[in-house]
Amino acid sequence: MGSPKSVKIGTVTIGGGAPIAIQTMCSTKTADVAATLAQIKAQAKAGCHVTRVAIPNKEAALALSAITKESPLPIVADIHFDYRLALMSIDGGAAEVRINPGNIGAKERVAEVVKAAKAADIPIRIGVNSGSLPQNLRHLPLSEGLVQAALDEIKVLEDLDFSAIKISIKATDVLTTVKAYRKLHTLCDYPLHLGLTESGTLLNGAIRSSAALAILLSEGIGDTIRVSLASDPIKEVLVAKELLRSLDLYQGGVVVHACPTCARCHGSVWQMAEKLEERLATFKSKRTINLAVMGCEVNGPGEAALADMGMAMKGNKEAILFVKGEMVASGPEEEIFNKLIEKVENYYAEKM
Amino acid sequence: MGSPKSVKIGTVTIGGGAPIAIQTMCSTKTADVAATLAQIKAQAKAGCHVTRVAIPNKEAALALSAITKESPLPIVADIHFDYRLALMSIDGGAAEVRINPGNIGAKERVAEVVKAAKAADIPIRIGVNSGSLPQNLRHLPLSEGLVQAALDEIKVLEDLDFSAIKISIKATDVLTTVKAYRKLHTLCDYPLHLGLTESGTLLNGAIRSSAALAILLSEGIGDTIRVSLASDPIKEVLVAKELLRSLDLYQGGVVVHACPTCARCHGSVWQMAEKLEERLATFKSKRTINLAVMGCEVNGPGEAALADMGMAMKGNKEAILFVKGEMVASGPEEEIFNKLIEKVENYYAEKM
Repeated sequence: MGSPKSVKIGTVTIGGGAPIAIQTMCSTKTADVAATLAQIKAQAKAGCHVTRVAIPNKEAALALSAITKESPLPIVADIHFDYRLALMSIDGGAAEVRINPGNIGAKERVAEVVKAAKAADIPIRIGVNSGSLPQNLRHLPLSEGLVQAALDEIKVLEDLDFSAIKISIKATDVLTTVKAYRKLHTLCDYPLHLGLTESGTLLNGAIRSSAALAILLSEGIGDTIRVSLASDPIKEVLVAKELLRSLDLYQGGVVVHACPTCARCHGSVWQMAEKLEERLATFKSKRTINLAVMGCEVNGPGEAALADMGMAMKGNKEAILFVKGEMVASGPEEEIFNKLIEKVENYYAEKM
Repeated sequence: MGSPKSVKIGTVTIGGGAPIAIQTMCSTKTADVAATLAQIKAQAKAGCHVTRVAIPNKEAALALSAITKESPLPIVADIHFDYRLALMSIDGGAAEVRINPGNIGAKERVAEVVKAAKAADIPIRIGVNSGSLPQNLRHLPLSEGLVQAALDEIKVLEDLDFSAIKISIKATDVLTTVKAYRKLHTLCDYPLHLGLTESGTLLNGAIRSSAALAILLSEGIGDTIRVSLASDPIKEVLVAKELLRSLDLYQGGVVVHACPTCARCHGSVWQMAEKLEERLATFKSKRTINLAVMGCEVNGPGEAALADMGMAMKGNKEAILFVKGEMVASGPEEEIFNKLIEKVENYYAEKM
């Protein structure tokens, strides 16, 4: 599964059979060191493995060393247009630089970046996007253009005797992205960073990203993912974690199953389930814990017997608590909710 | 793609190469005819093709005929335990009945339901769930138990010379569900209704459902889907529509791409993108319209040149409007937003 070759971003191995790593990107101004560090710490707490910051200008590049010194996560510096910002970022402790072959310019400039990356012993991510393909590839079908852009850039790096390469080829739509990564996977064995570009808002971006990434990951394609959303980066991490967990590619934390509710339903299943998720979003455990919130006490515990534990509504704001399908307590919804949280924390919390 | 055989639920064909149909289920009390009809109308407006109501008791069954008479969508009656409710539902105009082999009881009772379904010329959905497998199959690995339960029930119906069959075999987790449907797809050619059971809350249920269904649909498995969420059924329909559209299995309406925003970003991309989605959630068009909301006017229009149109933020609450990557207007964000809506409605609205 995944790509045969690997790179290391700080302490995190990508490819070569390592677990799929979760990435996100800071939405803060990089020059605002305090805000950026605060966001990176929250990303780490949510389960992120590698983060990225944009380096749009000199101020951002100069701020990087203060950020990398304190960051709990390895940091990828994202550079467009100006290769000098890449050089400054490597000086500033970036654990990887991401450049876009469509807009970084002449090969000599890439050579300078490669020289610095070699000296610092960090990888380079070739980040091809459908929106910024080189002109000479725009006549191709989009998925082929993406692949060719990546191959062209790989060749530039290989000719410079550089092989610590990671690649992304993102389109905005699911089928083009899937097609492009499938093709690239057959043509090279460098680690692949999966994602859609501009995938959309929290919910719809999560749907589209899940569709694309699930298809690819289920075929053994991909080594690290970013679910790029027009939303808080913390949400990107939680969505990525949920997706990987659903494919058994991430262990730990809580999955909340909940019946969709129907005419048989008592009480506030939706709200309880969301509250449970919120309370336990950053909960750490060695194995994944399955919880269930069910709408009726008759069918609920039996139907959710495969869950580790859960609650089922009785109506009149009463509920029961069940463990492996067997009732263990009964009482007001809020009380049962708190008991459920307590049990999860007592039984499963990972001892650090 | 899909299953060779087909059934008709009212006017909607499922299987045999027909477009993938979107289903949901009412969360109202079925006996409350007015509330149920209002919800069904909203489901239809959102893009649903077939809906389902729970028939937990006699009152619900008796209410059905008033609902089916007025409903814009064909209605599936969902019956657990009591076969007499199935008979009453068929009398009440149900376009399909869904029974669960694990809990409907003796074969004689199934025979009575089959007789009535034949007389009414409606299909039966065999709805197997991981939470209610027959006892004799619980020793099997779950995915095999699900498949075997379906095969056993198919045999019961076939022995009664009944073949208007549709099947679902839902587990709560993605990999079991995928494995089960893949197996069943090789063993029978009846139309398949895809879904997870108790998949969860709006966001996490959408992620898990998208993962499972995208994998199956990309392999040509599945004829109709329900994204079952612990949320409003309208949301189930919108999530299903977005998922199918992302896989090119649904045409029409609007997709909003949005950049994830970074340190380069100006303005309120997230909020604008969500507002745009909300305004156009039930917009009807013949082909899918791609819109983009981008964080900067420099990269935005170019990167989103593949979108039909979009807006990019300039900062200071100003934005530009672009069509196929070319700027056509500039002004305050709100004004540009309204112009974008206007253009979409003028250019693409489906003439009814």
